[in-house]
Amino acid sequence: MMELALIKLGGSLITDKDKPYTPRLEIMQQLAWEVQQIRKQNPHLKLIIGNGAGSFAHQSAKKHNTIEGVFNDADKLGFCLVHQDALELNLLLAKVFLKTGLPVVSLPPLMMVVTQNQQLLKTDFAYIENTLASGMIPLVFGDVVLDQAIGGTIVSSDTLLGELAKYFHRQELQVRLINAGNYPGVCKQNGQVISHITPVNYGQIKTFLGQSESIDVTGGMAKKVAEFLTVASLGIDCWIIDGNIPGNLSRTVLGQSCLGTLISS
Amino acid sequence: MMELALIKLGGSLITDKDKPYTPRLEIMQQLAWEVQQIRKQNPHLKLIIGNGAGSFAHQSAKKHNTIEGVFNDADKLGFCLVHQDALELNLLLAKVFLKTGLPVVSLPPLMMVVTQNQQLLKTDFAYIENTLASGMIPLVFGDVVLDQAIGGTIVSSDTLLGELAKYFHRQELQVRLINAGNYPGVCKQNGQVISHITPVNYGQIKTFLGQSESIDVTGGMAKKVAEFLTVASLGIDCWIIDGNIPGNLSRTVLGQSCLGTLISS
Repeated sequence: MMELALIKLGGSLITDKDKPYTPRLEIMQQLAWEVQQIRKQNPHLKLIIGNGAGSFAHQSAKKHNTIEGVFNDADKLGFCLVHQDALELNLLLAKVFLKTGLPVVSLPPLMMVVTQNQQLLKTDFAYIENTLASGMIPLVFGDVVLDQAIGGTIVSSDTLLGELAKYFHRQELQVRLINAGNYPGVCKQNGQVISHITPVNYGQIKTFLGQSESIDVTGGMAKKVAEFLTVASLGIDCWIIDGNIPGNLSRTVLGQSCLGTLISS
Repeated sequence: MMELALIKLGGSLITDKDKPYTPRLEIMQQLAWEVQQIRKQNPHLKLIIGNGAGSFAHQSAKKHNTIEGVFNDADKLGFCLVHQDALELNLLLAKVFLKTGLPVVSLPPLMMVVTQNQQLLKTDFAYIENTLASGMIPLVFGDVVLDQAIGGTIVSSDTLLGELAKYFHRQELQVRLINAGNYPGVCKQNGQVISHITPVNYGQIKTFLGQSESIDVTGGMAKKVAEFLTVASLGIDCWIIDGNIPGNLSRTVLGQSCLGTLISS
C-alpha cells in the first residue's frame, strides 16, 4: 500500500507571528533538512507539504476581512493582496527547500477549491496527484478561494490538508497527517501536553481549547483539533507536534517517536 | 458583446534579458499606470495579463533544458526551480500592479495545462473564467507544465495567451491580443517595422524572421508571429508593439492608435 504523509508547517513556526512579514529562516532550513532525512530513510513515502500564513497573509487577511466575503472593489483588492502575501511566504519556504535539493512545487489552493458560504463546494486535486505521481513534492498553503455565494473567502492550510488526507485515503493510500507548530502540542490549562486525543476524551478537552494568542483568522488550535478529529475518524492518524525541536518532525513522520499530541479515533 | 483584451508583457520588456534575475521596475510601474488608464477609459473591458519569463525563468529553463522533458531527479529539481523563478518574476510584477490598486491574481499555468510530447493535451481555464467573472485580473505567465509523455516541459506565455484567446472567442467574447515587448514590432531586415502582417505577406516575411538575440527557450519572434497568425485566422486581431513607449500599450488596447505590427487574417 502506498504511503503518504501530509506535513503542515505552522505559520507560527515558520514566521514570527507577532512581527509582520518576518520569516524564521533558520527554522525553515532545519525543516528542509528534516524532510531530506525523511526522504533518505523512507524513499517510498510520498509527501505533501502545506504551510500556514503566519505573519504574512494573516495580517492582510485580518485587515481586509477576506474570510467574511468579497463584495466591493476594496474587498477584491484585499483578496488579491492576501493571495500575494500567501504566495510570497510560500515562495520563501520553497526557495529554502529547493536550495537543499528538495523538488517542491508551489501550487496555490485558489486553483483547487471553490466554496459556497465558506463551505467547500468543489475540490480538484488532479494537479496535486499528478505532481506526486511525477515524484515531486506539492507545496500548498492557506489561500484565498472564490466563493459562489459571498465572492471569496479563505481556506486554511489545515482545512486543505484535511481534505487532501480524506481524498488520498479514498484512493486507498495509507495516509498520516503531521502538524508541526510553534507549540509543544495540544496543552492542558497548566501547560502540560496531552499526549493522545480521541473522541472519548475530546468532550473534556474541548472546554479549555481557546484561540491562539496571535492573529489567526482561521480559528487556531480549537478548530485544528476539531478538524483533525474528523480526519482521524476515518482511521487517519494525526499529530500536532513541536516543530522547533530538531528531529521531532522527521521522527514523527517516520513513526519512530514523537513529542506532541496524537489525535486518533 | 463582452470585450476581452489579452495583454502579454514580454520578458524582454519587464526584465533586462541579458542580466540574470534583473527586473525593470520602472517599466513595470509605467505598465501598471497604463493598465489603470485602460480600466478608467473602458471599465467594461475584461483583461487578462500574461508575462514572459525574461531573465528569470529563461535562465533556469535553459540551464536545466526543461522544455525537452523531465526524466531524472536532476530534471525534476530543475522543473521545480524553473517554476520558482517564473513565479518569482510574476509576483514581482503583481506586487507593482497591486500597489497601484489593480486587482491582479497570480495564477500558475502549471495548474491549467497538461501536454503530451510538448503539445497541449488538456487545458482547464475555469479558474481564469471565475476570476474574470469576479471582476479581478488574472495574471498568468510562461510556466513549466506536466507532460504525459516526457514528464514535463514549458509552455510560453504566448502559447497560453493564444489558447486563452481561442477559448474566450469560442465563448463569444470579442477578443483582442496585444503583445508588448522590448522591440518596435515585427521588423524587416533593415529594422523598419512591418505595420501589418496577414496570410498574404507572411510567406515573404517568414524568410527573415529569426530567433531573438537573448536567451529565449520558447522560440522568439518567429514562433510568436506564427502562433499569432493562427489566432488571427479566427478573426482575433493581434498586435506586437513597443511596450517602452509611454501610452502605446493603453492606446493600442483602447483601439486609439498603435505603434507596432498588427497581425490579422
